[in-house]
Amino acid sequence: MTHTNSEILELFEGALAQMQTPEEPELLYAPIIYSMSGGGKRLRPVLLLITTEAFGGDIEEAMPAALAVEIFHNFTLLHDDIMDNADVRRGKPSVFAKWGGNVALLSGDAMLITAYKHLARVSPEVLPRVMTIFSDMALEVCEGQQYDMDFETMEGVLVEDYMQMIERKTSALLSGSAMIGATMAGASTNDIRKIYRFATELGIAFQLQDDVLDSYGDEALGKKIGGDILEGKQTFLMVQAMSRADEREREVLRNTHRDSKLSNEEKIARVKALYDKLDVRRLAEQQIELRFERALSALAELSIEKSRTANLQEFARNLMGRKK
Amino acid sequence: MTHTNSEILELFEGALAQMQTPEEPELLYAPIIYSMSGGGKRLRPVLLLITTEAFGGDIEEAMPAALAVEIFHNFTLLHDDIMDNADVRRGKPSVFAKWGGNVALLSGDAMLITAYKHLARVSPEVLPRVMTIFSDMALEVCEGQQYDMDFETMEGVLVEDYMQMIERKTSALLSGSAMIGATMAGASTNDIRKIYRFATELGIAFQLQDDVLDSYGDEALGKKIGGDILEGKQTFLMVQAMSRADEREREVLRNTHRDSKLSNEEKIARVKALYDKLDVRRLAEQQIELRFERALSALAELSIEKSRTANLQEFARNLMGRKK
Repeated sequence: MTHTNSEILELFEGALAQMQTPEEPELLYAPIIYSMSGGGKRLRPVLLLITTEAFGGDIEEAMPAALAVEIFHNFTLLHDDIMDNADVRRGKPSVFAKWGGNVALLSGDAMLITAYKHLARVSPEVLPRVMTIFSDMALEVCEGQQYDMDFETMEGVLVEDYMQMIERKTSALLSGSAMIGATMAGASTNDIRKIYRFATELGIAFQLQDDVLDSYGDEALGKKIGGDILEGKQTFLMVQAMSRADEREREVLRNTHRDSKLSNEEKIARVKALYDKLDVRRLAEQQIELRFERALSALAELSIEKSRTANLQEFARNLMGRKK
Repeated sequence: MTHTNSEILELFEGALAQMQTPEEPELLYAPIIYSMSGGGKRLRPVLLLITTEAFGGDIEEAMPAALAVEIFHNFTLLHDDIMDNADVRRGKPSVFAKWGGNVALLSGDAMLITAYKHLARVSPEVLPRVMTIFSDMALEVCEGQQYDMDFETMEGVLVEDYMQMIERKTSALLSGSAMIGATMAGASTNDIRKIYRFATELGIAFQLQDDVLDSYGDEALGKKIGGDILEGKQTFLMVQAMSRADEREREVLRNTHRDSKLSNEEKIARVKALYDKLDVRRLAEQQIELRFERALSALAELSIEKSRTANLQEFARNLMGRKK
C-alpha cells in the first residue's frame, strides 16, 4: 500500500518530532532544535520518500536518510545566514541573529555531523552508495554557494554560469534526495539516472520561477516584490538582461540598486522597465516551461509502471504551484 | 610485517600527497589544499594506523579512515580560528586571516564533507560502526569547543568541568582515531574499550602537559611563555589555582590579565607567583603522571601479545616528549 504525499509529509514530521537532541551544552544544541522546528516545506525528505515508494521501497527504512537530507538542508541555512548576514529566516530571527555567528557556526557543524549520524542508520548494503551520493551532493551545494558569492563581485556573469550555479545550489539537494530514495529501493542505474534528471530539471525550473516571482510576484499574496533588485543580486532576469543590454542599459542595470538618489520603488521600477524592454521575463518563462517539461518526460521514461509516478508528478506540480 | 612509526607517518604523508582536490571554485578548494599541506604532526591518523596494525589490520585498508580523521582535525582548526579570531596557525597566516571568515567557514564545511567522503571508502562490513564512532567523536569535539567558549565568560569553572571539556576537545579525536583503527582490524569489544581508555588518558595527559608548558616551558626551545595567562584562558593551572585560592588571591587570578597598568612580564610573573604559592604545577604534574600510567596500563591489559603494543607505547612516549 502506498501513501499520498501529504501522508508522507505527516510521517516525516512524526519522525522528526521523535528525534532526540542532547540538552548540553545548551548553546550547541538549542539552536539545532530551534532551527529544525522552524517549519519549512520539508521538500527534500518528502521527495526522497516519495521516490523510494515509487520504486517499491519502504518509507520507514528510508526515514534515516530523509532526516539526514532535511538536517543537512537546515545546516546550509544556518551557515548561509552567517555568510549573508541574514537576520530573518522563515519570518523569525535567524540563529545568527538570535545567538551570534560563533554559535551559528558551531551548531551548524554539529548539524552536519548529526545528518551523517542519521545516514549511518540506513541498511548496510546500500550505505556506501548512499553516503557517496550524499557527500557529492553536499559538496555541490557548497560549490553553488561559493559561486553565488563569487558572482556578487563579478562583472559579466554569463547565463551559462548562472545556470551551473543554481544547478549546484538548488538542484543538487533535490536530485541527491531523489537519487538516495531510488537507491534505497534498489532502483536500476538507468532509473537512477532518470530520476536524477527529473529532480535536476525540476530544481532549475523551481529556482527560475523563484527569480521571476521576486520581481513579478503577486503582492496581494503577501510577497514582497523587488528584494533581489534592491540587493543587486544576480538572478536569471539580471544575467539575461545584462547579456542583451547595450552599454548604457548595462550601466543602469549595474548601478541602480546603489543609487542613493532613488527610492526603493524607483529602483525597482527602473530595473523592471529594462527587464520588460529586453523581454527577459518571457525568456525565463520559456526556460521554466522547458525545464518542467523535461522533468516530466524524464519521469515518463522510468522503467516502472506509469501509475507509480503519480505522486512524483504531483510533487512536481505542487512545487511549481500548478494545478496540472 | 609491521612498520615502524616513522614508516607509518611516511605512508600517510604519501597517501595525503596523492589526495585529489578539485580546482574550482578556487575560493572553496584552495584553502583546503593550503590547510592540509600546512604541516602538523599527523598524530591522529598515525595513531589510527598504528592501532590497526597492532591488532593485525592492514594499513592500506585503513588509509581512507586515516585521511578522514586528519581532514576532520584540520577542519576543526579552520572553524576554531574563525571563532577565536586567530590570525596565525602553525606559524603561517590562518585561512581566516588569509581569505576571511566566509571562505574559512565554507571551505571548512567542504572539508568536513570531504572527510566523510573518504570514510565512505572503508570496507562496507565495518562502515556502519566506523561511521558511528566517527560521528560521535566529531560531536564530542564540537561539545568540547562549545564548553571551552562557555568557560571564557563563566565564573567558577570547576576542575571537573575543565577535565570533561578537555576529554571532549582534545581526547575524543585521539580515542576516536584509535577505536576506528581497532575496529577496522576486527578487534574485540573489550579491546576496543581498552584502546579507548588508552587514548583518552593519553589525550588528557597531553593536554595537561600543554597547559604546564605554556607557563613553565623552556623559552630556550623557542616556546613563548605565558600566552594562556595573558589571554586569561582557563587552563588546568588556572582552575586549580582558583579552587585553592582565598578571596584576595582569586581577585588577582581573575583580573591580572586585563590590568592595563602591568607589562606582560609583570602579569605573567604575578600569576605564576600565585601558581607557585598554591602549588598547582605539582598537582598538574601528578595528574599527568597518573594519566600517563593509566594509559600504559590500559595497553598492558589488551588481549594481544605484548610485543604488538610496542609502537603504541612509543607513540605515547613521543607524544609526551619522553625517552622512556
